[in-house]
Amino acid sequence: MNIKFTTGKSISVLNKESIINALKRHEIYLIAACGGKGTCGKCRVKVLGGRYRTSKTGKISQADRNKGIVLACHTFPEEDISLEILEETRLVVGDKIALSKAKDLSELFRSLDGEISLIVKRLYLELPPPTIQDHIGDLERLRRELDLKGIKEMRFSHGFISSMADRMRSPNWKISLAYVGGPEAIFVADGKDSVRYGLAVDIGTTTIVVYIVDLSDGSLIDVGSTYNSQIRHGDDVITRIVHATEGRGLHELRDAVIEDINELIETIIEKHKINREMIETAVISGNTIMSHIFWGLSPQYIREEPYIPTVNFFPMWKAGTARLHINNQAPVYTLPCVASYVGGDIVSGVLASKMHRNHEIALFMDIGTNGEIAIGNNEWLMTAACSAGPCFEGSGIKHGMRATEGAIESVKIDRNTHEPELGVIGNSNPVGICGSGMIDAISEMFLKGIIDQKGKFVRELKTDRIREGEDGVEFVLYRGEKDIVLTEADIENILRAKAAIYAGVSMLIKEVGFTLDNIERVYIAGGFGNYLDVDKAIILGMLPDLPKERFRFLGNTSIAGAYLCLLSERLRKEAEEIAQKMTYMELSASRNFMDEYMSALFLPHTDIALFPTVEKLKNSG
Amino acid sequence: MNIKFTTGKSISVLNKESIINALKRHEIYLIAACGGKGTCGKCRVKVLGGRYRTSKTGKISQADRNKGIVLACHTFPEEDISLEILEETRLVVGDKIALSKAKDLSELFRSLDGEISLIVKRLYLELPPPTIQDHIGDLERLRRELDLKGIKEMRFSHGFISSMADRMRSPNWKISLAYVGGPEAIFVADGKDSVRYGLAVDIGTTTIVVYIVDLSDGSLIDVGSTYNSQIRHGDDVITRIVHATEGRGLHELRDAVIEDINELIETIIEKHKINREMIETAVISGNTIMSHIFWGLSPQYIREEPYIPTVNFFPMWKAGTARLHINNQAPVYTLPCVASYVGGDIVSGVLASKMHRNHEIALFMDIGTNGEIAIGNNEWLMTAACSAGPCFEGSGIKHGMRATEGAIESVKIDRNTHEPELGVIGNSNPVGICGSGMIDAISEMFLKGIIDQKGKFVRELKTDRIREGEDGVEFVLYRGEKDIVLTEADIENILRAKAAIYAGVSMLIKEVGFTLDNIERVYIAGGFGNYLDVDKAIILGMLPDLPKERFRFLGNTSIAGAYLCLLSERLRKEAEEIAQKMTYMELSASRNFMDEYMSALFLPHTDIALFPTVEKLKNSG
Repeated sequence: MNIKFTTGKSISVLNKESIINALKRHEIYLIAACGGKGTCGKCRVKVLGGRYRTSKTGKISQADRNKGIVLACHTFPEEDISLEILEETRLVVGDKIALSKAKDLSELFRSLDGEISLIVKRLYLELPPPTIQDHIGDLERLRRELDLKGIKEMRFSHGFISSMADRMRSPNWKISLAYVGGPEAIFVADGKDSVRYGLAVDIGTTTIVVYIVDLSDGSLIDVGSTYNSQIRHGDDVITRIVHATEGRGLHELRDAVIEDINELIETIIEKHKINREMIETAVISGNTIMSHIFWGLSPQYIREEPYIPTVNFFPMWKAGTARLHINNQAPVYTLPCVASYVGGDIVSGVLASKMHRNHEIALFMDIGTNGEIAIGNNEWLMTAACSAGPCFEGSGIKHGMRATEGAIESVKIDRNTHEPELGVIGNSNPVGICGSGMIDAISEMFLKGIIDQKGKFVRELKTDRIREGEDGVEFVLYRGEKDIVLTEADIENILRAKAAIYAGVSMLIKEVGFTLDNIERVYIAGGFGNYLDVDKAIILGMLPDLPKERFRFLGNTSIAGAYLCLLSERLRKEAEEIAQKMTYMELSASRNFMDEYMSALFLPHTDIALFPTVEKLKNSG
Repeated sequence: MNIKFTTGKSISVLNKESIINALKRHEIYLIAACGGKGTCGKCRVKVLGGRYRTSKTGKISQADRNKGIVLACHTFPEEDISLEILEETRLVVGDKIALSKAKDLSELFRSLDGEISLIVKRLYLELPPPTIQDHIGDLERLRRELDLKGIKEMRFSHGFISSMADRMRSPNWKISLAYVGGPEAIFVADGKDSVRYGLAVDIGTTTIVVYIVDLSDGSLIDVGSTYNSQIRHGDDVITRIVHATEGRGLHELRDAVIEDINELIETIIEKHKINREMIETAVISGNTIMSHIFWGLSPQYIREEPYIPTVNFFPMWKAGTARLHINNQAPVYTLPCVASYVGGDIVSGVLASKMHRNHEIALFMDIGTNGEIAIGNNEWLMTAACSAGPCFEGSGIKHGMRATEGAIESVKIDRNTHEPELGVIGNSNPVGICGSGMIDAISEMFLKGIIDQKGKFVRELKTDRIREGEDGVEFVLYRGEKDIVLTEADIENILRAKAAIYAGVSMLIKEVGFTLDNIERVYIAGGFGNYLDVDKAIILGMLPDLPKERFRFLGNTSIAGAYLCLLSERLRKEAEEIAQKMTYMELSASRNFMDEYMSALFLPHTDIALFPTVEKLKNSG
């Protein structure tokens, strides 16, 4: 049997094989937040013709069903079918994402250290060439020279030794020995000078970013980014953990991320004509689950009580073992993690925020696919994960999507007509709504009296924008061939996410005996943070009601921290101190968390006194 | 096109493909001492029918040519041919070879050390299981426990970490940490007691021997041996070096030896139901070229002046990297080498001989495919390689073969009738002559006046045993369907080999300012040594004319040394001291060597005064 596409292309489908699996076999990946369990309703495809069997339809409206729209994960062709993959369903790996600027980076580095001290050291040696009389082995010749320089106990791996003989002879025994702490020799380079590059990687649950850096001055050669193609196995960390514990799942996840990184490296080195052997160091930053998968470690025990990662402080390992396509002998440094749900990305973030160096009390919030927060200053640090869930990334929201072309990113609603005015990424017709659009829409609806404090539509309101849809009451944001709506269920999901974040912040602040007033600075990190409207996020009750000037947007601090650690021994030490010093608070273990969470499920909060600005806005409205 | 065998089986042959290459593609290997260059004349096959082209015939007698016998390396089928592979040509991998006895081994160990101190140490730990409160990572839990025990700076590789989480949980956190010096953790084992095995390997140019040893008491579980299937690429080390430097040659040679070792391991662990994970250490002993190839290092520079090995003192590496099919994390110790042509097998041999501990001056001779000698005592050691060549292994001798079934291993010749009396391995009809048979034959022919001091046949002798053959004058040892002969050219080859050995011994003795009388003990090692008749070897002038009681046969000392190093830290140290202490003498660089060699080309020697026993025998005869 075959699946034929509108493009004319066709692929084979096996007996009893689901559409999603047939597509996967041909390397066509769909968004499938739940990993193919039929619960997220994301992997929608349109069958244009042919007989098929579908076993789950719950997430699909009758109207859509009539059009032939089905869940690819629970639909099985029974003869040749012709298929259309909907625009919002296809997972396009390789999309570009907004990135930090090179100038900001070098400024950040200068402000934190400024003196480059690399992981790979070099030692220039002029070895006496061998003769019939002086006939010791090459390795013994090198050891003798190191001995003369007072360097003992150097370790030599098979990887070093296997390339050594030629590399010593080609520059006629005038070599640079590249080594790492331990000390361990890693490779032999020609003569005195050579170009040296480093690789910094942020492995996000959703997005992967790589930097190639000139190690001589820290300048950024180029940047690459792509979606983490692990998404094909589900888009939150829990689904990934589940996949990792099934069959060859861990290998699949690891292969996916390694291939993503290697493709990004490939593109950059081709463009800049860089010899991959010259990329001699890598630094990786990711949350605890991403770091475990990168290391090929099962994240199984992270999810089982008492939630234990296998490693927080990763030793250095080699690019060849990691299968990164750079110099095989390059040391790979992994940012240390704090606990199961607070990883190296947060340690990176705290480092890049500099909050660990200042006396002022700061709050750090990374609102990505997961939600992590940290509070503290140069004396103490406390952290928690508040499992906001991936709804701000589009998952679990009827028309939710990531912040890419066609996403509604801002919403204004007229108080009288209730007509919305939409900002759409790429100024095209909207195909869905992204996180910042959701925040805008809900705060606007709340301010303009369309929804109440509980997030429920005000039924008596006279507007045809509110209507009964397939999934209950909804507000129509956009009317078109496909209407874009926010349902009451969507709003409930978003309120749960923001409540988790706010409750986390509240708990942390209370735990250290403070009140909101003590917070002198709020750092917001995450790709999401770039588009966030603070006022609207305060109205939503996601961010605490603090003066706007206390907020700082930092962008992707995970890659920034990786970049810093690539260049500086001192900053690697600081990162380790941050990870060591951070006290992790397990929110799921605390009874008070549920109370805080329940109170935060309202707009902006049960206790409106916590949000004086919003109170004033409501009253003035 | 096809090649059909007399057995009915047939294989394909490509256009312009030689018979030897077609056979190789189908994993049928022939003896090809020269590696397929058409110079050794060993890869003889018989074409029974079909058209073919042959481009080298020099090594084949007209009579044989008439029978359809050709060199497989220089013969190219031009249509379907039918083929017979001659018995003496086929390389049977997997033949058993005579081995040391278990009892001798444990006695040897007791006499040298007796106290087992293994490479892999164990530390029993009872870790407190994790809780919600005590939620540090598994690696951090282990590190904390080691810290409490005062053990800092333990290294942890990816290989260790990747199996750690499950292995800590399954015995409920009561574990044995296996580690090596450094220190570096290598794996986690259950609880307190477990069976532990070690692997000792002798990689000979011709033969591979493995021991599986119970590490608790040093008892020998089993022994396996096979021909080194590198032989398919030539049978002396020089041919191997050449092959290693061509294309994928190094990989082919490495793959060949690793597969041989793994097959031997497989057979033993299946037979004894041993879990391969329990084999936790390996020790490898081989000459410098074999050690380099095992390590995947090109032996190229060993052959080029000034003859430099890449490594003499090999660091420890891991079984997983080496691709040995035992515990991936098992440390692999390689016996240190001395120089390009004196390797770990000789260091092993000296260790097993104990000559490095005694005050008496001893001479150590390893007469295998190569010829290495050492002289010295507990104060000094001197060594040299005398490149005897592989003729005692059958190579370069018209009817030469290894000491396997059908080989003439002893010869007596009647003084009057000149009729020979033959001892044949397996008491079958002879198909060739092995090293000890050659030595016997030549000394008998010399003693009985059939050949003169130069190794030339006494033409006036009245016997039809001496005749003009295809390759010049020859002595017929056996008359049969195929006559077995020794030609004058064969005798010349053997004289060259024994002259090289004797000249090496002479040079070494002179170099240290001694005479033969100073030699209190002669140790003879090598598979060859097992069958050697000392009296005959003295008549040949290969061994020095010393009282018979000074000679000791040690058998395969290379595997014995590997076994000792598997069990004892002290003996590993001693092996390293031996390698360090040994002064290597490059004979090829010495002008006097040629003089010594020329003098030793006679029977037994130009200076008969050096061989009083032989002089007496001759006179008494």
